[in-house]
Amino acid sequence: MIKYHEALETISKHPLSPKTGLLSLEEINGHVLNEDVYADRDFPPFDRVTMDGISINYESYKNGQRRFEIENTIGAGMPQASLEDTSKCMQIMTGAMLPLNADTVIRYEDITIEEDIATINIDTIKFQQNVHFKGEDKKQGAIVLSKGTVLGAPEMIIAASIGRPNLEVLLPPKAAIITTGDELVGIDETPLDHEIRRSSNYGVQDLLKIWNINAKQHHLKDDKELMKSELSSIIETVDLLVLTGGVSRGKFDFLPEVLEELGVVKHFHKVKQRPGKPFWFGTTPNGTTVFALPGNPVSTFACANIYIRHWLELSLGIQTSPIYVKLNQDIEFMPPLTYFLECSVESNERGELEATPIRGHGSGDFANMSQANGFIILPSDKNKFKKGEVYPYLFYRKI
Amino acid sequence: MIKYHEALETISKHPLSPKTGLLSLEEINGHVLNEDVYADRDFPPFDRVTMDGISINYESYKNGQRRFEIENTIGAGMPQASLEDTSKCMQIMTGAMLPLNADTVIRYEDITIEEDIATINIDTIKFQQNVHFKGEDKKQGAIVLSKGTVLGAPEMIIAASIGRPNLEVLLPPKAAIITTGDELVGIDETPLDHEIRRSSNYGVQDLLKIWNINAKQHHLKDDKELMKSELSSIIETVDLLVLTGGVSRGKFDFLPEVLEELGVVKHFHKVKQRPGKPFWFGTTPNGTTVFALPGNPVSTFACANIYIRHWLELSLGIQTSPIYVKLNQDIEFMPPLTYFLECSVESNERGELEATPIRGHGSGDFANMSQANGFIILPSDKNKFKKGEVYPYLFYRKI
Repeated sequence: MIKYHEALETISKHPLSPKTGLLSLEEINGHVLNEDVYADRDFPPFDRVTMDGISINYESYKNGQRRFEIENTIGAGMPQASLEDTSKCMQIMTGAMLPLNADTVIRYEDITIEEDIATINIDTIKFQQNVHFKGEDKKQGAIVLSKGTVLGAPEMIIAASIGRPNLEVLLPPKAAIITTGDELVGIDETPLDHEIRRSSNYGVQDLLKIWNINAKQHHLKDDKELMKSELSSIIETVDLLVLTGGVSRGKFDFLPEVLEELGVVKHFHKVKQRPGKPFWFGTTPNGTTVFALPGNPVSTFACANIYIRHWLELSLGIQTSPIYVKLNQDIEFMPPLTYFLECSVESNERGELEATPIRGHGSGDFANMSQANGFIILPSDKNKFKKGEVYPYLFYRKI
Repeated sequence: MIKYHEALETISKHPLSPKTGLLSLEEINGHVLNEDVYADRDFPPFDRVTMDGISINYESYKNGQRRFEIENTIGAGMPQASLEDTSKCMQIMTGAMLPLNADTVIRYEDITIEEDIATINIDTIKFQQNVHFKGEDKKQGAIVLSKGTVLGAPEMIIAASIGRPNLEVLLPPKAAIITTGDELVGIDETPLDHEIRRSSNYGVQDLLKIWNINAKQHHLKDDKELMKSELSSIIETVDLLVLTGGVSRGKFDFLPEVLEELGVVKHFHKVKQRPGKPFWFGTTPNGTTVFALPGNPVSTFACANIYIRHWLELSLGIQTSPIYVKLNQDIEFMPPLTYFLECSVESNERGELEATPIRGHGSGDFANMSQANGFIILPSDKNKFKKGEVYPYLFYRKI
């Protein structure tokens, strides 16, 4: 039985080698960019007016001129105009190109217009004000998005602005989720007294969607030969295989044996943690990674959030910083195990993330999962965790 | 011109009345539950064994018995067995029903089995240990999910476990996003010197997906009559209309006028904020809500994140607590405006959320949006914001 950190380290040694592909802007959310993306021209691409008003040549203003005849009116989307007579001005709109020979924009709020004459009413006009100059943000050819960026709304805006309807990204792994256990019936079935419905798989399936993974679902009966033959065909078709149940010490827990018979190399079985102690991890020579998780919903969900997330982030090169939260009450936990405790974490007015533990009745109790938003990770080398102490946290729900 | 808080309050007076519908488990993520959901039976539904080992009658152990003949082996998914002779035991697996007359489970780690005799090796066995008793978490008929819950992985697990393949939810509004501005060309086109590509719409579109809103996209030219006729047909078909551009004081900013001519009641135009001052908000008598946002990408994205999010959360009854973050440097901002400043917020080892401002070159500078993960909201009644002070924050990207 290994420790939590050893399990993470072992998993880190077996990353996926993701495939790459081009995806359209509408599809890229949550994917990892696999190219550096460059500005196709300067940003802004021209001296861009940022206020509605008039554009002038500052020299005239500096020399004391306050009344300017309006030569023309220029809107956004019009070709660049030219202020031929620098004692005149042009009306100009936000988003327009600054006219040639003009260098400064004065907003409507600071002028009066009467019969084509604009009068400037204030004496605090600054040279080049209200103009966002060409190339001020980015020069043509500069990197605007770096390889490895997780793509979201800001990146869609940037990619659109430089005319990239498609981006090269890391493609998510092909995955399958397999539930095992003869006590499990389908969600549409009525369970007998000794049966329960399959549910753990839905938590894993939903988690994997963060990385745009659409996992196929299967269920296997606790029959060793059947299990072996069905698993053998599924395992060849996926990069990531998540199994639930069948990994503890029970007489019908064939899974570790079957996996090894199918050539999956075991890297560990059992981790000093609660929930999720019987967690089994292995890989095939062909590159399939197998997470065989304990079957009860809280164990499955905790292990998936902690270990599969870690593996995917590492495999996809996603840089994440740990999140730390402050306990708002004392917790005592005696077993020498890393304790993944569900909490409700909220922000407080001191700018801290404050964790309220939601303690259930062990790993089979999942009715409380809806009140919590993640797991605090309490280390195995302590038994008493005091109010005000700070520990790492994994959100499974957005705050 | 109104203040930020007044704008929020005005928007709060015009919530959407969402429609309701049944969605399948695979579709519910991010939706708001519109029913209380009850346990169909007790949870756990039977006295559920939580360890692999043997089940005994505690009375025998208490009386000093340590060796138990194994009568039978019971797995998860088998009907309930009965321990007829309480001086014997049954092997029992995690997830199985506790046999009648048994009340306590001892794990394999604490026993030795030889020739059908299990010997208990420790003296610290507790009555009823390793059993998760029927109804301990929830009683049949108890609420397991409350109306108003935002649905995610934990709720999918719970709904599956009680046999609810469909749930009644609030349906997202029908929405359209319309860009305006003659300077804008499509993402696939090559802009002329004075033109730029449409991009703001992608940020809004992506944001709306949080609430499962698939907004239709349109573009209108700065031609008043054309704008009016096209808008008039679009506006009737949606609950939420987001417009970008055409709302400042420019000579070609027809939008406020056109909207009012089409019967949209203006509730405000212009807010004391940066970016996004020209923001216009109105509603139609038929119930369409119109957010006409300034067109540059940072303004559009800030206003959408702040105001449309507020309107949607309010309309859908989503309870959110504000998030507070601590500035890690001084900021000065002189205009008497609420300042939405992009920041990169990370968790630190004191359990605080720490904000590093990412200052660009004004609202037209969106190349930096990818470095930030949200907007800090700095109030208009101050000019100096000191390192260590705490202000509200809106994440547009997950930490």
